[in-house]
Amino acid sequence: MKVIESVAEMEAGRAGMAGSVGLVPTMGFLHEGHLSLVRRARAGNEHVVVSIFVNPTQFGPGEDYDRYPRDADRDLQLLEAAGADFVFMPRHWREMYPPGFDDWVEVRGPLVLRLEGAARPGHFRGVTTVVARLFRIVRPHRAYFGQKDAQQVRVIRQMVREQGLPVEIVPMPTVREPDGLAMSSRNVYLSPEERQSALVLPRALELARKMVLEWGLRDADLVRESLEDYLRQKPQVQVEYISIADEETLEELHHSIERPALVLLAARVGATRLIDNTLLVPEGVEVPEGLHQIIEDIKAGMREHGGTGP
Amino acid sequence: MKVIESVAEMEAGRAGMAGSVGLVPTMGFLHEGHLSLVRRARAGNEHVVVSIFVNPTQFGPGEDYDRYPRDADRDLQLLEAAGADFVFMPRHWREMYPPGFDDWVEVRGPLVLRLEGAARPGHFRGVTTVVARLFRIVRPHRAYFGQKDAQQVRVIRQMVREQGLPVEIVPMPTVREPDGLAMSSRNVYLSPEERQSALVLPRALELARKMVLEWGLRDADLVRESLEDYLRQKPQVQVEYISIADEETLEELHHSIERPALVLLAARVGATRLIDNTLLVPEGVEVPEGLHQIIEDIKAGMREHGGTGP
Repeated sequence: MKVIESVAEMEAGRAGMAGSVGLVPTMGFLHEGHLSLVRRARAGNEHVVVSIFVNPTQFGPGEDYDRYPRDADRDLQLLEAAGADFVFMPRHWREMYPPGFDDWVEVRGPLVLRLEGAARPGHFRGVTTVVARLFRIVRPHRAYFGQKDAQQVRVIRQMVREQGLPVEIVPMPTVREPDGLAMSSRNVYLSPEERQSALVLPRALELARKMVLEWGLRDADLVRESLEDYLRQKPQVQVEYISIADEETLEELHHSIERPALVLLAARVGATRLIDNTLLVPEGVEVPEGLHQIIEDIKAGMREHGGTGP
Repeated sequence: MKVIESVAEMEAGRAGMAGSVGLVPTMGFLHEGHLSLVRRARAGNEHVVVSIFVNPTQFGPGEDYDRYPRDADRDLQLLEAAGADFVFMPRHWREMYPPGFDDWVEVRGPLVLRLEGAARPGHFRGVTTVVARLFRIVRPHRAYFGQKDAQQVRVIRQMVREQGLPVEIVPMPTVREPDGLAMSSRNVYLSPEERQSALVLPRALELARKMVLEWGLRDADLVRESLEDYLRQKPQVQVEYISIADEETLEELHHSIERPALVLLAARVGATRLIDNTLLVPEGVEVPEGLHQIIEDIKAGMREHGGTGP
């Protein structure tokens, strides 16, 4: 495994690769979610590049850029074991944003204005900019992202489409802790009590799944209000948003769920902001090509993590 | 076991009883629900009287008085086995309503105006009249009623209070078929397909129990709407009402459930009208004296009948 710290070296390294290249963009402090992306990239490509870059432009003022957790030694060990060929970890953010940088890549429209886009102004502009830049440097055939950042996956897809980049975006299911909490590098911020309180997020998602998939309810407003009612009982958790949205456009759904839908949550537990989501495909709703495997994965994941309620 | 067919004989029979008397008023075509009342009466009294009388005054025009199922031979065998001492089965309705009868017993107020009272005008007037008359003939110390007719139990309690009758009203938990359907003499009207469709009633109650007791939701409107949404998906079932009401007064609850509540359903499956209900006592809500055993019984019953959803 080769560790590369400059753009020039990465471009040179890429020039020497024949066959398909898979890229896993990360901000480091890797967990099993990241490693599942690396392993999938490993299985589907001749070369696997993992980038580790805590991208300053996607953090807002007052966010946790300064204290975002870092552990390069551990990350490299994990990546070696997971089968990465190249780890691209720019030694300084100036590598990615050289003086005079003005190559902002931005998508517009409702997709970036809602949810994370509304809660974190400028966030997606930073994400699309750094991902586009990584794509131009690494020129991957495929890039792997976790569904935990469901909106990010869709924003990046729109960016790739608009920029005409020849990269296949491969979303992978959220990996969860044994008790159901979605893995996140930010979970390290949680105190033991907060860690326990945070479980209401996957449990709220499980409630939505029960209502729609088990009980056959179809009223999105009702499911959203039920999640509000559920989370209202948990004073340790400050809800930022509860969304039941079209799986593709993330437009908010009301009344009858007749298309695959995402339930998306953002909440603060203490000082830590967490997000989570799940995909709902009600019985009788046509499943678009490409969602089948994701649905199976989610079912398996939810089963594994109990999912019989709080 | 003595079978008595006239009021005069019943009064004479009663005069010969020393010690406590338990009465189980029924309309015959007995099922396990009735028998559980008889067995409880047997365990708690020196004498057990069961009345079998299809009371015409509690049926409305167009209701099923004419075709209400009857099977006296089987009923008597079952009652003998359950330990009844006296079966009072007036040979004609004129026994109970002699010429010139004008002894109507009626309770007033919100309790009789809602739900069954609204759906079946005059029904409770017929019930309170016949029960009061039975109480005056049999002079029981205790009378046993099934919680399946939850509103009836409360109406009879009000009647007993207002009339100053010295009878303890003992409500007993609804007995269910193995698949969860509440036992009812009217279940015999259901075709095999309707019988299957009817299961959405106990399942809807189970949904309410999950939302409130398992997930901790407290918004009665939300639970009611969820049941509406659930039952709306079942075109075989025409809902008459879905009520989430104060356990005691049956006043409709909105927003926060902070008292024991009943969920009450009435629906038509084909031509057959069915009712069912369950008691909800959310965590943290004070349980009035007398409900403890009922709550335990319901829990046991729901567990027994699966209750893991549809």
